[in-house]
Amino acid sequence: MERLKIVVIGGVAAGPKAAARAKRCDQNAQVTLVEKGEWLSYGGCGLPYFLGAAVKEIKDLMSTSWEAVRSPQFFHEAKDIDVLLGWEALSINRKDKTVKVIDVGTKETKELVYDKLVLATGAEVLVPPIPGLDALGVFQLKNPGHALAMKEYLLNNEVANAIIIGGGLIGLETAEALANWGMEVTIVEMQNQIMPYLLDPELSLAFSTYLEQEDLNILTSTKVQKVLADDDGRVKGVETEQGFIACQVVLVSAGVRPNVKLAQEAGLAVEKGIIVNEYMETSDSDIYACGDCVVCEHIASGNQVYVPLGSTANKQGRIVGTNITGGRENSPGIMGTSIVKMFDWNAGRTGLSERDAKELGYDVVTAFVPGPDKAHFFPGKKLILVKLIADRKTGKLLGAQLIGPGDIARRLDVMVTAITLGATAHQVANLDLAYAPPFSPAMDTLINAANVVKNIIDGKAKNMSFQEFKAKLSDDNVIYIDLRTTEERKAKNIKARNQLHIPFEEIRARSTEIPKDKEIVVFCILSTRAFEAQVILNHLGFSNVSFVDAGIQFWPL
Amino acid sequence: MERLKIVVIGGVAAGPKAAARAKRCDQNAQVTLVEKGEWLSYGGCGLPYFLGAAVKEIKDLMSTSWEAVRSPQFFHEAKDIDVLLGWEALSINRKDKTVKVIDVGTKETKELVYDKLVLATGAEVLVPPIPGLDALGVFQLKNPGHALAMKEYLLNNEVANAIIIGGGLIGLETAEALANWGMEVTIVEMQNQIMPYLLDPELSLAFSTYLEQEDLNILTSTKVQKVLADDDGRVKGVETEQGFIACQVVLVSAGVRPNVKLAQEAGLAVEKGIIVNEYMETSDSDIYACGDCVVCEHIASGNQVYVPLGSTANKQGRIVGTNITGGRENSPGIMGTSIVKMFDWNAGRTGLSERDAKELGYDVVTAFVPGPDKAHFFPGKKLILVKLIADRKTGKLLGAQLIGPGDIARRLDVMVTAITLGATAHQVANLDLAYAPPFSPAMDTLINAANVVKNIIDGKAKNMSFQEFKAKLSDDNVIYIDLRTTEERKAKNIKARNQLHIPFEEIRARSTEIPKDKEIVVFCILSTRAFEAQVILNHLGFSNVSFVDAGIQFWPL
Repeated sequence: MERLKIVVIGGVAAGPKAAARAKRCDQNAQVTLVEKGEWLSYGGCGLPYFLGAAVKEIKDLMSTSWEAVRSPQFFHEAKDIDVLLGWEALSINRKDKTVKVIDVGTKETKELVYDKLVLATGAEVLVPPIPGLDALGVFQLKNPGHALAMKEYLLNNEVANAIIIGGGLIGLETAEALANWGMEVTIVEMQNQIMPYLLDPELSLAFSTYLEQEDLNILTSTKVQKVLADDDGRVKGVETEQGFIACQVVLVSAGVRPNVKLAQEAGLAVEKGIIVNEYMETSDSDIYACGDCVVCEHIASGNQVYVPLGSTANKQGRIVGTNITGGRENSPGIMGTSIVKMFDWNAGRTGLSERDAKELGYDVVTAFVPGPDKAHFFPGKKLILVKLIADRKTGKLLGAQLIGPGDIARRLDVMVTAITLGATAHQVANLDLAYAPPFSPAMDTLINAANVVKNIIDGKAKNMSFQEFKAKLSDDNVIYIDLRTTEERKAKNIKARNQLHIPFEEIRARSTEIPKDKEIVVFCILSTRAFEAQVILNHLGFSNVSFVDAGIQFWPL
Repeated sequence: MERLKIVVIGGVAAGPKAAARAKRCDQNAQVTLVEKGEWLSYGGCGLPYFLGAAVKEIKDLMSTSWEAVRSPQFFHEAKDIDVLLGWEALSINRKDKTVKVIDVGTKETKELVYDKLVLATGAEVLVPPIPGLDALGVFQLKNPGHALAMKEYLLNNEVANAIIIGGGLIGLETAEALANWGMEVTIVEMQNQIMPYLLDPELSLAFSTYLEQEDLNILTSTKVQKVLADDDGRVKGVETEQGFIACQVVLVSAGVRPNVKLAQEAGLAVEKGIIVNEYMETSDSDIYACGDCVVCEHIASGNQVYVPLGSTANKQGRIVGTNITGGRENSPGIMGTSIVKMFDWNAGRTGLSERDAKELGYDVVTAFVPGPDKAHFFPGKKLILVKLIADRKTGKLLGAQLIGPGDIARRLDVMVTAITLGATAHQVANLDLAYAPPFSPAMDTLINAANVVKNIIDGKAKNMSFQEFKAKLSDDNVIYIDLRTTEERKAKNIKARNQLHIPFEEIRARSTEIPKDKEIVVFCILSTRAFEAQVILNHLGFSNVSFVDAGIQFWPL
């Protein structure tokens, strides 16, 4: 029997996964894995943690769970996969079904014949056109070589101040790692918020406020204009629109872009990345692509999006491995899920952002619900803030964003699952989620959030955004009612022009103190009481009453 | 406008929720909450934690998140709900739509008129007919009074040994609490495993093995025959089928049964509990029921089941509050989800057990996948073991059970959501779950588990249960192949009659050492290598090869 010849270009995540899965499906296949770099099958997402102290050795990022290093020899012996490490694919001859490869060191070339070709060419760091980026001490963080070089630089130079160009995930995670070395770290983000593609503005702001408390400096709407070096060529600072900032190290983490040159030159369909169908086939049915070089369908929007991520790369690699060996599995697409841990807080999102949803024409409802991640009487409980984005017409959930010190990952993954499967707020509100005091409140905060969505859709609850709440503080025609206890008020003072303090329990008895002709905004710490007060005041004849989204705990006020 | 008269019987969880929701939906409603006990609106699930040290004061279980105690006064002032505390409902007159209630202390009676009546009569502890249960030092744990009495007894008596009758959730949680006092604790369970309604036998066994390492004594298939007291009437021990066990305290936690007397005497439909439709209406459309007194539809089986739980009570209470005030919301039923934390391990389940699924006629596939809860290179990662139960024909997931020290709650809740919404293994395997190294491996252990289900259905993977693995160890016709490294083998020795040690990486080269005419069982620590070895050996002409479910890490071998 003729052996199926498979060539896989790219040896980081999707490529090795596709190769290994192909062998598991067809032990008879002849699989060659080509990687132009010197690093094979590594956990790139772990690099910031190697730069910090969490991951001790770089080989930990390249090992199996039983501590075997995934070397070419390992691939050969354990998986019967031939690895060409340090070989670059130069061109694809689709007619002859060959790939021309070159040994990056010796410049020897050869032709590899394929029946099925897999492009897992990954992405590279997007380097903005800033003068001076060639100074010593300027790094990017894409492969273990980068991480080793940067760590060595930090160990051998006196580095007190670091600049991170770009406030995305890698930038943030590295900022934390460097802050843990004791450096003063400044994140410079071109857009008007950090995590611009991840969090809606108000959650980004709340998260930034926390990060600033942890002593990170954050400059948004700011560009680095120039990197300055000393006489030895070492970086000494950056010029920004906000002035000069001294620093001894710079990380460029302004995003990545897919490596599509090989695909493009071979005449394959490429837009924001390599175009594939649901079976991960490119426009040539003998060539598949997966991982950071492809664009994917966003399940919630139906749009083609570019969201490079190790988890997606692995899932796609598996599907490719199945399909090139005779299987026919589809990839349903992605939900744009992301999560990040920074110091003692977490932030995550899935599905559509509020703006995405509005741009797609939905009549958008948003609910913001803070609450504990365990029973409120259980020690160690921590707060989370859930934002849900829903379609008023159908009650379907479209997106979720969560921040806070508590366990957001669990609620986020429920939302990933629920949105992927088309659930409504009513369905999520009635999920039989796991309950015991060490794990959640009896009514989980996520379930409360889904109920708030329902209350808003049903016209029972009327919420006001934090931005509007803040903007109206000095409005003569608005009365703010502080429902907190006298004790609670000591913690945070809200400067509203017209303010009444009526503890929640007294709201019925003292409603006569409230003018009937004004707009009324009620607030408490987490808006549990404020929603109820709104309902009571509505009943008592006050027609224009709102409560502030999520209360005042999370917002910079 | 005539005010809607609502009477709610039962003031623990579902009742107060129904009452409060009803008021939020109809501020004009006249709501009376009747509770026969002396405790109102408490977190019953927190009682074992009050008995331990986690919850300091009993009032913490009866407070709002802003630390207001939910007293009758609080309900009156904050919610305009009248509470009759210490009043018992004696009978319902459905024709006149009245309830006769009696003051438990003064024996004063009165009639309450209702338009809508809510039965939230809860459950009571099922007390087995064991002689001697009236001894001092024998407790049950259903309300704060019980917990206070038991704690006082423990503080004022020398208690070195405790007996827990019943190995369900409350029994286990209390066992941990008492063990943390330093007592020697023995759990006596009538059935042949602990958590008989929660975990399948092999997972229960693995969990028991862990608990025994934490110095809990566990006696299964054992009944307490008699409780013995000393001359002062204090418990001094129990007689069991396994002999006498000295103890100074006994907890009866052999389950609960729904309080259905009132409903039954009123002629409402009652079976295992009060029967309600999806709108939580009883057989009388003006009487609703919710919480621990009702049976619910199990979403995955369609059967009526009795699973009393605080989270379900709250959700149902909300639906009742909505529906008695003119709304029309359905309760989709429950998934039988449960979770428990014991020392440093967790155990949880949702959906159908393996036996449930078989009894319902499914062609059942089970997959057992252990793995880390964070990236395997990330510090603090912990193991979890996922068991998935699926239907071979459709690939639909039917149930999930998880144990281990790692974060099982997150994966369990994904499965709750996925099974509720009818997802297949392929859909779960491709969920865009939240990924970053501090939260999960790039291929989450749950996603791996869903892929194993697919591999088994597709005939690619052939697994053997732990029970069969163990039973065949002394079988002459079976060859066991240990794929671990020489170093790994030192940790755990497997006593198989015919055993070969071939480290995974050498399996291709050394396959000639393996007899072709025998049944072959391959194993490693977590079966990651074993599955791959099975595929390789199949290709090399060995037809009867299986790997042991989940490897050898979790099983008592």
